[in-house]
Amino acid sequence: MGKGKPVTQSDVIDGRKRVVIESLTPQIDDGRYPIKRTAGDSVIVEVDAFADGHEHIACLLHYRRQIDDTWTEIAMAPLGNDRWRATFKVDEVGRYLYTVSAWVDQFQSWCHDLGKRPETDKDLLVAFEVGAQLLADAAQRASGTAAKQLKAVAELLRSDAGQSEKRGAALAPELAALMARHDGRAFAVHYNKELVVTVDRARAGFSSWYEFFPRSCTERETRHGTFKDCEAHLSYVAAMGFDVVYFPPIHPIGRTNRKGKNNSVVCTPADVGSPWGIGAEEGGHKAVHPDLGTLEDFRRFVAKAKDHGMEVALDIAYQCSPDHPYVKQHPQWFRWRPDGTVQYAENPPKKYQDIYPIHFESEDWLGLWQELKSVVLFWIEQGVTIFRVDNPHTKPLAFWEWLIGEVQSEHPDVVFLSEAFTRPKVMYRLAKAGFTQSYTYFTWRNTKWELTEYFTELTQTQVHEYFRPNLWPNTPDILHAYLQFGERPAFVARLVLAATLGANYGIYGPAFELWERRARELGSEEYLDSEKYQIRAWDLQRPDSLKELIARVNQVRRENAALQRDRNLLFHTVDNEQLICYSKSTDDLSNIIVMVVNLDPHHTQSGWVELPLEDFGLEAQQPYQVHDLLTDARYLWHGARNYVELNPQVVSAHIFRLRRRVRSEHDFDYFM
Amino acid sequence: MGKGKPVTQSDVIDGRKRVVIESLTPQIDDGRYPIKRTAGDSVIVEVDAFADGHEHIACLLHYRRQIDDTWTEIAMAPLGNDRWRATFKVDEVGRYLYTVSAWVDQFQSWCHDLGKRPETDKDLLVAFEVGAQLLADAAQRASGTAAKQLKAVAELLRSDAGQSEKRGAALAPELAALMARHDGRAFAVHYNKELVVTVDRARAGFSSWYEFFPRSCTERETRHGTFKDCEAHLSYVAAMGFDVVYFPPIHPIGRTNRKGKNNSVVCTPADVGSPWGIGAEEGGHKAVHPDLGTLEDFRRFVAKAKDHGMEVALDIAYQCSPDHPYVKQHPQWFRWRPDGTVQYAENPPKKYQDIYPIHFESEDWLGLWQELKSVVLFWIEQGVTIFRVDNPHTKPLAFWEWLIGEVQSEHPDVVFLSEAFTRPKVMYRLAKAGFTQSYTYFTWRNTKWELTEYFTELTQTQVHEYFRPNLWPNTPDILHAYLQFGERPAFVARLVLAATLGANYGIYGPAFELWERRARELGSEEYLDSEKYQIRAWDLQRPDSLKELIARVNQVRRENAALQRDRNLLFHTVDNEQLICYSKSTDDLSNIIVMVVNLDPHHTQSGWVELPLEDFGLEAQQPYQVHDLLTDARYLWHGARNYVELNPQVVSAHIFRLRRRVRSEHDFDYFM
Repeated sequence: MGKGKPVTQSDVIDGRKRVVIESLTPQIDDGRYPIKRTAGDSVIVEVDAFADGHEHIACLLHYRRQIDDTWTEIAMAPLGNDRWRATFKVDEVGRYLYTVSAWVDQFQSWCHDLGKRPETDKDLLVAFEVGAQLLADAAQRASGTAAKQLKAVAELLRSDAGQSEKRGAALAPELAALMARHDGRAFAVHYNKELVVTVDRARAGFSSWYEFFPRSCTERETRHGTFKDCEAHLSYVAAMGFDVVYFPPIHPIGRTNRKGKNNSVVCTPADVGSPWGIGAEEGGHKAVHPDLGTLEDFRRFVAKAKDHGMEVALDIAYQCSPDHPYVKQHPQWFRWRPDGTVQYAENPPKKYQDIYPIHFESEDWLGLWQELKSVVLFWIEQGVTIFRVDNPHTKPLAFWEWLIGEVQSEHPDVVFLSEAFTRPKVMYRLAKAGFTQSYTYFTWRNTKWELTEYFTELTQTQVHEYFRPNLWPNTPDILHAYLQFGERPAFVARLVLAATLGANYGIYGPAFELWERRARELGSEEYLDSEKYQIRAWDLQRPDSLKELIARVNQVRRENAALQRDRNLLFHTVDNEQLICYSKSTDDLSNIIVMVVNLDPHHTQSGWVELPLEDFGLEAQQPYQVHDLLTDARYLWHGARNYVELNPQVVSAHIFRLRRRVRSEHDFDYFM
Repeated sequence: MGKGKPVTQSDVIDGRKRVVIESLTPQIDDGRYPIKRTAGDSVIVEVDAFADGHEHIACLLHYRRQIDDTWTEIAMAPLGNDRWRATFKVDEVGRYLYTVSAWVDQFQSWCHDLGKRPETDKDLLVAFEVGAQLLADAAQRASGTAAKQLKAVAELLRSDAGQSEKRGAALAPELAALMARHDGRAFAVHYNKELVVTVDRARAGFSSWYEFFPRSCTERETRHGTFKDCEAHLSYVAAMGFDVVYFPPIHPIGRTNRKGKNNSVVCTPADVGSPWGIGAEEGGHKAVHPDLGTLEDFRRFVAKAKDHGMEVALDIAYQCSPDHPYVKQHPQWFRWRPDGTVQYAENPPKKYQDIYPIHFESEDWLGLWQELKSVVLFWIEQGVTIFRVDNPHTKPLAFWEWLIGEVQSEHPDVVFLSEAFTRPKVMYRLAKAGFTQSYTYFTWRNTKWELTEYFTELTQTQVHEYFRPNLWPNTPDILHAYLQFGERPAFVARLVLAATLGANYGIYGPAFELWERRARELGSEEYLDSEKYQIRAWDLQRPDSLKELIARVNQVRRENAALQRDRNLLFHTVDNEQLICYSKSTDDLSNIIVMVVNLDPHHTQSGWVELPLEDFGLEAQQPYQVHDLLTDARYLWHGARNYVELNPQVVSAHIFRLRRRVRSEHDFDYFM
């Protein structure tokens, strides 16, 4: 702040630039942050552009890849009320820029004026001469054939040709197109910002995550699982149809203040500690836990996962056990108290006695940032392309913006998932800062009202431009009461909700498919005998496992493009508060999926759903088929209102594909 | 546009600045334009401010007059959900700046932490030392008593005083206040913009305009009225309670293509022409029409008006008759056609054959701008402080922003009224560019739905921050069909609507008070025998004149503060589409005015109005009085729903003042 010119002082450069450009969308916080898209998406740009007076204006959208030099121009179309629209496609991963320019279009204004003049108008001669001058001027700017064509029309208008011949030539669409390219843009106004689109690869927008603890890849709890065990486990995960395997931290675990089972502050020599207590004598964030194997083993695991069509996501948790090498090598990266100790981490009411937070107000903050960046680059070198970032909301927002920007400028393919469960504005700000995907409050949204409100906010407001939700029914930290008490039906309902409300979702397994629901104590969201503090051996072949259902759901997701986006979510009315109904469709309506989920895990619920047939391109009189992709059942529905009934003891949800009646060439009706 | 760093590239200056400041309101178009207030108003500023982690932050509002050097700071109060609020008053006319800063407040965070630690906490000793250090650091930044006080508490915390004594001293509110002033702000973040408030004088926010043609100040149509006649007329206008007298242009009128009566292109020597055909041999925009008198006469008229408590508003119409001196002196300010003529002005379908528009794309645009500015300054020198600007939407928006900025930087008292009737975004953009007040679509909004929609947009959305409506039921250009066919009741209804929906309103008289309703032809909004083209002699003493009612309405406006603002407008339900009900109240509810208007000029209408008693601070059980300030009738109402009936042959509207029952000291109930 200081004394000086106010921001509104008009900085007039050329008073003849008469167009005003305002309210350009999409843009986030005045263009401060990029919008997000995935490769192949479109960006629909709209803007208000107008000038004083009654003349016509021309309005152009300009866009380019950031790494390219040249802009592409697209003429924007008027929508009425001084609003304009144009669309461009973003096919390549990386960043694109877009902006708008506009100017008073003298030739179009002249054409419009000419069109209104009657044949008897005594000013017609002058009008033709005015047009001829505009064309002659444009011919000067053009070259080759274009220049010749423009010049020819100019000469025609000045000739003694008939009036209707002159009008015809002047108002020909080809001439308009030619003039649009060679119009005088001396007084063009450029929008005062170049806006940015971050274009991610397809998996940023559509992914199915499976989290597990590699050390639990074991047949008994006394044996520490290894990367080699995990390799063998990959086919199990792949069979369920996941495409991202996500590991909690795989680094050496500290011994000082190591946690015992169930987060006990008393630790026995047999206790393995929390993987988030990162760093020991054996190394820190760039080392692997010796009991898991070697870096070589890890790289082989990553390669094997790829063979199964899966990517490996690593946990980035910027924090240290008291034994982390950083503590000695870089003491200035920690906040030392007057008694010579470092205060351990807290996330009230949780206490992490085994963890030192990093002190981001360190005088050596730049050295710290560089080192933390090198951690990401290190794992990228090992083949990791997805990072799930632990508690990003406890590190500076400016740091994330810098880190993600730096990494993606070299590796635009890398995906960052923000594991923040904090206040709404901080969640959103992290997404603006660059996180590709974000954890959500989905884990705590269980009623129809909560789900409808929240997902309307996520998908139908500006939030969808920068915040990509990744939905988790459970995590190692969160076993919601709904799951604790809802038994298997609750897991089924939450699975279907996560997998169909969100294009990106994940589960923490095998706890999820084995519907592990024992809390540490009543009122807690912590698992009893949590894998965070001990090795667990799971019976993956239990007959009541949800793995088949999960496989089916993931298959449905893969086969139905409508489920691979977020912005197409629409909620529909059901006259029963325990039933929620919503749909997703492709733009061309070739794939319409309607979900009905019974949120009551204990009782059969029924009701009438109401679908917007017109939006679906269905005629009110025509019957249509709803094909349940979970059970393969097919029902013939008529009209907007239809009856549904869901028994949670059977299956808590429908995932219907709407099929239209089609007449075959042999005059035989079928549904497709 | 060029190749370069994208706008979103983080420009990190100090990574330790951890606070984020977002979504500051009020601001118009990212702070591009000022908000508007009148002297004595408040500005309520809100902002999102937050940091990573769980520490407390401090958040300050800073403001100053633009001409002052020093900022005033106000602590912002948290509203929850990371939103903060503070309010400042703008008492002086001119511009104010405001912005926000915030930082992680280490001392408040420490106090919060201390408050949570039990007495048994083994870390308490360390905690007190951490606090002592913060206080000792602050003492270094402070001086005098403050430094001593801070030091003393630091020493207490380090002493062997008892725990509760230390806590008491540390958590004392006085210490918090002291630390708020001397906290370390090394990592404070400043919002990236200084926002502007344009503070206008009171009349900008509350004014009653009366427009008349000075040449019609005559007893017969063959004699041209003069400024001296107008002087005598002032008491008539003042008796109706107006405070702004507005004249159409008073300059010499051109002879070339002068219009005859009723806009005829045929003109007789007796025809006086349109005052908007500005400029003749006798002079241009800085001259007065010889038939009106001299500049001296005009100045005396302005002074006399002031004696009556009225200001004179002049019409600024930047356009020229073909005879204007500019045409010869500055031919480059006009667009010459190839035949050596200038195209006359058009505002399709209207044609102004007697007017040349100014060519703002002139190469000498800067010389032109300077000359047009000198016109305004000239009339300011003659005592004029209000300008009604004719058709500003046909001159560049950048020009107005420059002109108004230049004039108001020297003369912040000067008021500009935008006479634009054009597309909504252009109307709003003119207000953003600096026009103090704006004509509206009120003239064409006649149904309850139209009025409710439009005035909700004007008063209950962001529009109210920059657009001050000035409501006109008629103008010399617009005689709406509602008035043409609604007879006297229509004029009464529109008068009450204009005067109570808007704090600023005006009428074109005597056509209004004499309910002149003859259109030039069926379907036209032009007056028959319009004063635009001829002198009219009016019978001001006609017994059916509305002048008494107008005087009453203006008196009600002056006596009721609730009617002197726009943002307090609320619409209320009436179960009859022909009845509209709305209210305005002062913030302290000491003045609550409820209007009911019968929009049907032909029939008595009745219905039940519903008032929000709780918002009015009335108890549902208590009766209250509604006192009709137009007729002095008083009704006792009970509850939210009450019956109203309005006969347009009597009076089309109620202007009720709500009066509460009060018990006097003599145990006697009355309404006040």
